[in-house]
Amino acid sequence: MNSKSLIGVVAAALLTLGTPQTQAQEVTEMKEFTLEDLNFGGTNYYNMIPGNRRLTWWGDQLVRIELNECYLVDKKTGKETVLFTVDDVNKWLEATPDQAPLHALYNARFPYGDQPLVLLQFGGERCLIDFEQKKQVWHQSSADERQASSFNTTSRNTAYVSGDQLYVRPADFGKEDIQLTTDGSREIVYGRSVHRDEFGIHSGLFWSPDGMRLAFYRMDQSMVTDYPQVNLFGHIATHEPDKYPMAGELSHEVTIGVYDVATNKTLYLKAGDPEDRYFTNVAWSPDSKTIYIFELNREQNDCRLVSYDATTGDRLAELYREIDRKYVEPFHPIEFLPWDDTKFILQSQKDGYNHLYLFDTKGNELKQLTRGEWVVLNLVGFCPSRKSIIISSNECSPIQCNTWEVSVATGKRTLLDNGEGWHSPSLSGSGHHIADNYQTPTIPRNIEIADVKTRKHTAYYESPNPWEGYKIPQFTCGTLKAADGTTDLYWRMVKPADFDETKQYPTVVYVYGGPHAHNVDARWNYASRSWETYMAQKGYIIFILDNRGSENRGKAFEQATFRRLGQEEMRDQMCGVDYLKSLPYVDADRIGVHGWSFGGFMTISLMTNYPDVFKVGVAGGPVIDWKWYEVMYGERYMDSPAANPEGYAETSLLPKAKNLKGKLQIITGYNDPTVVPQHCLMFIEECIKAGTQPDFFAYPGEGHNMMGHKSVHLHERITQYFEDWLK
Amino acid sequence: MNSKSLIGVVAAALLTLGTPQTQAQEVTEMKEFTLEDLNFGGTNYYNMIPGNRRLTWWGDQLVRIELNECYLVDKKTGKETVLFTVDDVNKWLEATPDQAPLHALYNARFPYGDQPLVLLQFGGERCLIDFEQKKQVWHQSSADERQASSFNTTSRNTAYVSGDQLYVRPADFGKEDIQLTTDGSREIVYGRSVHRDEFGIHSGLFWSPDGMRLAFYRMDQSMVTDYPQVNLFGHIATHEPDKYPMAGELSHEVTIGVYDVATNKTLYLKAGDPEDRYFTNVAWSPDSKTIYIFELNREQNDCRLVSYDATTGDRLAELYREIDRKYVEPFHPIEFLPWDDTKFILQSQKDGYNHLYLFDTKGNELKQLTRGEWVVLNLVGFCPSRKSIIISSNECSPIQCNTWEVSVATGKRTLLDNGEGWHSPSLSGSGHHIADNYQTPTIPRNIEIADVKTRKHTAYYESPNPWEGYKIPQFTCGTLKAADGTTDLYWRMVKPADFDETKQYPTVVYVYGGPHAHNVDARWNYASRSWETYMAQKGYIIFILDNRGSENRGKAFEQATFRRLGQEEMRDQMCGVDYLKSLPYVDADRIGVHGWSFGGFMTISLMTNYPDVFKVGVAGGPVIDWKWYEVMYGERYMDSPAANPEGYAETSLLPKAKNLKGKLQIITGYNDPTVVPQHCLMFIEECIKAGTQPDFFAYPGEGHNMMGHKSVHLHERITQYFEDWLK
Repeated sequence: MNSKSLIGVVAAALLTLGTPQTQAQEVTEMKEFTLEDLNFGGTNYYNMIPGNRRLTWWGDQLVRIELNECYLVDKKTGKETVLFTVDDVNKWLEATPDQAPLHALYNARFPYGDQPLVLLQFGGERCLIDFEQKKQVWHQSSADERQASSFNTTSRNTAYVSGDQLYVRPADFGKEDIQLTTDGSREIVYGRSVHRDEFGIHSGLFWSPDGMRLAFYRMDQSMVTDYPQVNLFGHIATHEPDKYPMAGELSHEVTIGVYDVATNKTLYLKAGDPEDRYFTNVAWSPDSKTIYIFELNREQNDCRLVSYDATTGDRLAELYREIDRKYVEPFHPIEFLPWDDTKFILQSQKDGYNHLYLFDTKGNELKQLTRGEWVVLNLVGFCPSRKSIIISSNECSPIQCNTWEVSVATGKRTLLDNGEGWHSPSLSGSGHHIADNYQTPTIPRNIEIADVKTRKHTAYYESPNPWEGYKIPQFTCGTLKAADGTTDLYWRMVKPADFDETKQYPTVVYVYGGPHAHNVDARWNYASRSWETYMAQKGYIIFILDNRGSENRGKAFEQATFRRLGQEEMRDQMCGVDYLKSLPYVDADRIGVHGWSFGGFMTISLMTNYPDVFKVGVAGGPVIDWKWYEVMYGERYMDSPAANPEGYAETSLLPKAKNLKGKLQIITGYNDPTVVPQHCLMFIEECIKAGTQPDFFAYPGEGHNMMGHKSVHLHERITQYFEDWLK
Repeated sequence: MNSKSLIGVVAAALLTLGTPQTQAQEVTEMKEFTLEDLNFGGTNYYNMIPGNRRLTWWGDQLVRIELNECYLVDKKTGKETVLFTVDDVNKWLEATPDQAPLHALYNARFPYGDQPLVLLQFGGERCLIDFEQKKQVWHQSSADERQASSFNTTSRNTAYVSGDQLYVRPADFGKEDIQLTTDGSREIVYGRSVHRDEFGIHSGLFWSPDGMRLAFYRMDQSMVTDYPQVNLFGHIATHEPDKYPMAGELSHEVTIGVYDVATNKTLYLKAGDPEDRYFTNVAWSPDSKTIYIFELNREQNDCRLVSYDATTGDRLAELYREIDRKYVEPFHPIEFLPWDDTKFILQSQKDGYNHLYLFDTKGNELKQLTRGEWVVLNLVGFCPSRKSIIISSNECSPIQCNTWEVSVATGKRTLLDNGEGWHSPSLSGSGHHIADNYQTPTIPRNIEIADVKTRKHTAYYESPNPWEGYKIPQFTCGTLKAADGTTDLYWRMVKPADFDETKQYPTVVYVYGGPHAHNVDARWNYASRSWETYMAQKGYIIFILDNRGSENRGKAFEQATFRRLGQEEMRDQMCGVDYLKSLPYVDADRIGVHGWSFGGFMTISLMTNYPDVFKVGVAGGPVIDWKWYEVMYGERYMDSPAANPEGYAETSLLPKAKNLKGKLQIITGYNDPTVVPQHCLMFIEECIKAGTQPDFFAYPGEGHNMMGHKSVHLHERITQYFEDWLK
C-alpha cells in the first residue's frame, strides 16, 4: 500500500497548513473554537467561514449584490461603483400605490442583459424596475407560490402550485390566473419534483424557452404505501403519513403534461404506460416545439433519450439508448448549442467516465467532445462567438474542480483557471467572462474575474482567514490503495494543533461512503467539516477516506459496490484503518467511527463486522436494511429484494445486532422521511433480542438532518459520546 | 425528624435479615445474583421467587391444583390425597367424540360446592366433568372469546365479544349463539372495560346472579381524539392509532345495556345524558332484578349510588351521595349480605379512611361497621352462619395486611391471622375456612389453613428460602417524618451483603410516589424489587420512601397532592434524601434516582428541581405534562387544564428542561399507550432547545412496561447507567 503518495497540491499544503510544533508556545495563547463557532446553526458560524461575494451577471456586466446596494464591478480592475441602493428603489416605487417597502436586495436578478432591469420579489409581488428610468416597469403577484413556482423571463408568465393545483399566472397584472388542474391532492401531485429527487430531478415545472408552453410533471402516488409519521407538535400528536415507495413495492407513476398558453390547452406526452418507468431530465428544443426526455426502466439498466412533439404529445423518435449491465443513471438534460439548433450536448459515462458527446437532433452521435480518465463535473455554459463549451472537470486531479474551455470543432481543451483547488465558475451572458470563485487547501476563498479569450485573470476578492487568531489543527491529505490493490483512494486527516508524533491519539474515522458524494477535495482545508476541527481541538485525530463507490472517479469505481452496498466500502475503509494502525501516533485501541445516513449504515456495518477494531461509534439516520429504503436509489444499487435476495441478506444489519461490542449511539430525526425510523428502531429491536446495548437518541420533529441550532446540540452530543467512551 | 423510629416488625426483621458483617468471610463464597435470576422475564426467575401452592375451594373442601393432578387437602392436617389426574380426565373423555386432549389442570375450577364437578376449558371448549361419575356432564364451545368473555356458573350462559360485537352463548350445546349488537367497532365498544380501567373497572360484562340477565357496558368513543401510534413490525410500518382522551378534551360516553335471556330483549338503563359522566361498580341485587351503579360527575367530586330496574331500565332511586371538596373515587361495588337481601355493604373513605358501612336497599345508612385510622384493604367475603364479614385491613400496621372477622351485629373485629406480615386470604364456600397465604419480611411464604370459628391454624406449606446459598443483601425498614412535620412515612433500604458502615456508598432512590400504589410493605424483604438486590450486589444502597399521595394511609394522606401532583411528593422525597445525607455511609455526592411512570415523572421532577442533589437519574415512561395524560386519572388529581392552569404550569416539566445538570436517561416503550411518547419526546425537544443533554432509549413495540425478556434488557440498561455515571 503506497500510503505516502501525497499528491502535489497536498504536499504543498503540508508545508503551509497547520501549526508547526516548534511554535507550540505561541499556540497556547490563541483562541479555541466552540461549536457555536464551527457548527452550521451556531451563533458565530457565519463569522468563521470564508468570506464571499454575492455576484450575478447582467449580460456581460458583473454585479455585486449586497443587502442594501447593488454594485457594478469593473472587470478589468475589480473596482466597484454603486448601481443603486434599497433606498433608491423605495424612492422610485413611491409612485406605485400600495407597494410594500423593499427591505433587501439579496434576491435581485438581472435577467435581461441588454436592458437596465432588475427583477425583485418582495411584498407579495414580483417586479421589474428600470434603474435607469428609475421606475417600476412591470409587476405581477407572487402570492400562493409556496408549493412550487417557476417564472419565465421571456414571456414573464409564472407557473405555480397552490393547494396541490397547478396554475399559470399571466404576465399581465390584471389578467386572472389560469387553473390547469382540479384533481391535485397528496396522491395526485402536479408541478413538483418526482421520483424522490433522484436522476437529477429537483423541480416539476419546465417552461419552454419562449415561456409560452409549460411542461410539468404529474405524479400519481395513490398506489404507494404510506409510511406513518407522527407530528408531535400539536396539543395532541397527529398522524401525518408520507408516501414512501420501498424497494420492490408498488411505485408511483409519472406522466408529463404540456400546457399551451396560446391555446389554453393541456395535453400529455404519449409516452405509454408509466408503470415502473422513470421520466427524467426534461429539456426543450430552442424553438419551444419539442421536448426531450430520458426514459429509464425500473431496473435502471436501459435508458433512452426520446423526443416528443409538444404541440400534439406525439412521440417523435428515440435518439439515443444506453444499456448497462449494472445501471445507467441519466443525470443531465441535453443542452442545445446556442449557435446551432440542430445539435445538442449529451452527457454520459458510457466510456467509463462522465463526458460530453455532440449529437444532432436526428440522434446521430457526431463526436465525443471530451475523453480521459477523469470526469466532466459540470457543463457551465457556452461561448457562442468562440463556439466553445465551458466545463468544470477534475482532469487536473481527482480531488480538484477546474474550469476548461472545450472547442466544439476540435475538442481542444484549454484550462481557464490556475489549475489548483476547487473552482465554482459563473459565466457571463456572452460566455466571454467568468467570475472564478475558488478555494484551495490553503486559500479560504479567492474570486477572480477571468477573460475566456485572453485567459487573463483580474484579482477581485480575497477572503481573510476567518480562523485568524485561533489554534488551527493540522490538515493533511494523501492516497492509499483500495482493497482491490490497485485503485488510489484519497484521504484527509485532521490532527490537533499541538500534535506531537511521539504521543498516541484516539482516532475517529468519519465515513460517508455512499454514491454521489465525496469527502476529500482540494477546497480550503481539504473541505474538512468543522466538527473535525472541534474534535482535533479536543485531542483526537480524525480520518476520512473516500472509498470505492463514492463519486467523481468514474463508473467502475462507483459501480464496484453494485448489489452489495457497504461490502467493498468496508474493505476500503479497513485499508484506511490499516494505514492508521501503521502510524505510531494513532492509538489502535482507541479507534472510533462516525457517519450519517449512508455513513450511519457504514458506521454500524463497521462496528458489527469489525467489533474488535472500533471501540466507539455514532451512527446518524442509518440505513439498516435496504428493503426499507426507497425504490429509486435502492433498486439502482441493490436491484429489488426479489431479484437480489443474497445481496439484501448480506448487507442487512439486523443479523449483525448480536455482534455489537463497542459503544454505539444511534441518532435519528424522529420524523426522518428519507431513512425512515423503522430502520434504526428495528435494529434496536434486534439488539434487545440479542441482549446487546446500543444507545439511542431522537430529534423530535426533525428529518434526515438536524437543522439550525439543533445541529449544534447534535454535534455536542456526538462529541461528548467520544469524550465519554473513547478518550 | 424521627427517622429512627422503626416499627416493631421492622426491628425484629433487622435482627434476622441480612448478613452480619462478622460473617463476611463466608459470604464471599456464596453465589451472586444475575438479572436472569432476579428479573421478571429472566430465564431463572421462577426458581428465585418464593414457592407457592395453587389452591382453590370446592365448597368447603380445599383443592390444590398442579399441572397434572388435583389434590384434596385435609384442612386439619394439611395432608393431600389425589382427587384426579390429567390422565384420569383424558380417560373419562374417551367416550366423547372429537374431544381434544387435556394437557394441564391449571385452570381447573370447582364452582359447585355441593357437586363433584370440575370446570375446565381446553380444546376450544368449556366443560364440566363429574369426577365421581367419571364423565363429562356438560360442555359448551369457547371459540371466539378472545376480546372478552364471562361465564355464569348458575345458568351456564356465556357472554363474549368477538369482532367487536357482543354475543350470548346459551348453556345448551346445540343452541346457536345470540348476537346482541351489530354496530360494534373501534368507536362503539361493547362488553369491555370502560373509563380506561379507572374506578376499579376491569370488565364490561356483568351477569345477574341467576345468569339470566347480562348487564354490559357500551362505550361510544367516536368523539375521542386518536393518538397516533406506529406499528413497526410489518414489512412496512403501519399507523395503529389509539383512542386517547386527554385531560380537558372530549371524553367517551358510556351507557349500560341489559340483555334478558328469557325475553331475548336488550334495553338500556335510563341514566340520562352520558356526556362527562362515569358509571362504575355495576352490582346486581340477589334477585337479579335490580342494578346498582355508582355515578360520578366529570369533576369527580359528586358521587351517587343509583338503582335501576333491570327489567325496564327505569331509574329507581338514589341511595347514597358523597361529595368531596377534592374528589370521590368509588372503587368497590356494593355487596349484599348473603343472609339478608335487603342490606348491603358499601365502602367509602368519607370519614377519612376506607371503611365498611351497612345500608338497606332504601338507602338508609344503618351503621358504620369499621372505624379507625387504618383502612379496609379488601372485603374478602362473608360467613353467613356467623353473620360476619371477612376483611383485610392494615389495622395492625400501615405496612401490613391482616385478615379480620367483623361481626355485622356488633362491629366487633377479631384478628384471624398471626398479626404479622402481608396476608392474602382465600375464603371457603361457607366462609368458615381460610387458606391463609402470607409473607413477612423474614418469611418467603407460608400457607396455613385457618378455621374462622376456632381461629386455629393448620400449617400447610412453607416455602424454602429461594435465595439459599446466595449473598443476600440487607433489608431494613423504618419511618421518617414527612415534609408536613407530622406524618410518618415508611421507607425501606437495601444494603450490600458485605455492607461496611465505615465506607461511603453510592445511593439510588427508587421512587414511584403516585396514587394507588405503595412500595414498602411487610412482605418478604419488605417487598423489595429484585433489581434492588442486584444493585446492592453491585455495591449500591437503594432507598425507597412512600411519600404522601401513596395508598393505604387514608384520604388526607392521599389527597395532600391534589391539583399539584409531584410537589408535596418531592418535598417528602427530599426528607428521605435529608435522612440519607445524615447517614455516614451514604455518599451525598453520589445520589441517583430512578422510577417508572409516575416514578419517571418524579425522577425528572427531582433531577430538574434539585439538580445539585441528584447526579444520575433514569426515568421510565415519564409523565412530563399532565395535559397529555388521560381524562379520568388526570382530572381526578389535577382537575382540567382550564380549571387548574396554575397547577398544570407548576407541575409541567417542560420549563424545567433547562435545569437538567446530571446524567438523565429517559426510557419509553415506543408504543406506550398509557403515558404516550409525546411526553418524553417533547421534554427532549425542550432540552434540545435549552441545550441540555438527556439520554434516551425506546423499546420498539412495547407499551408502558417492558414485558418478558425485554425487562431483563431494560434492567441491565438501567443498572449500567448507574455503573457508568454514579459509581
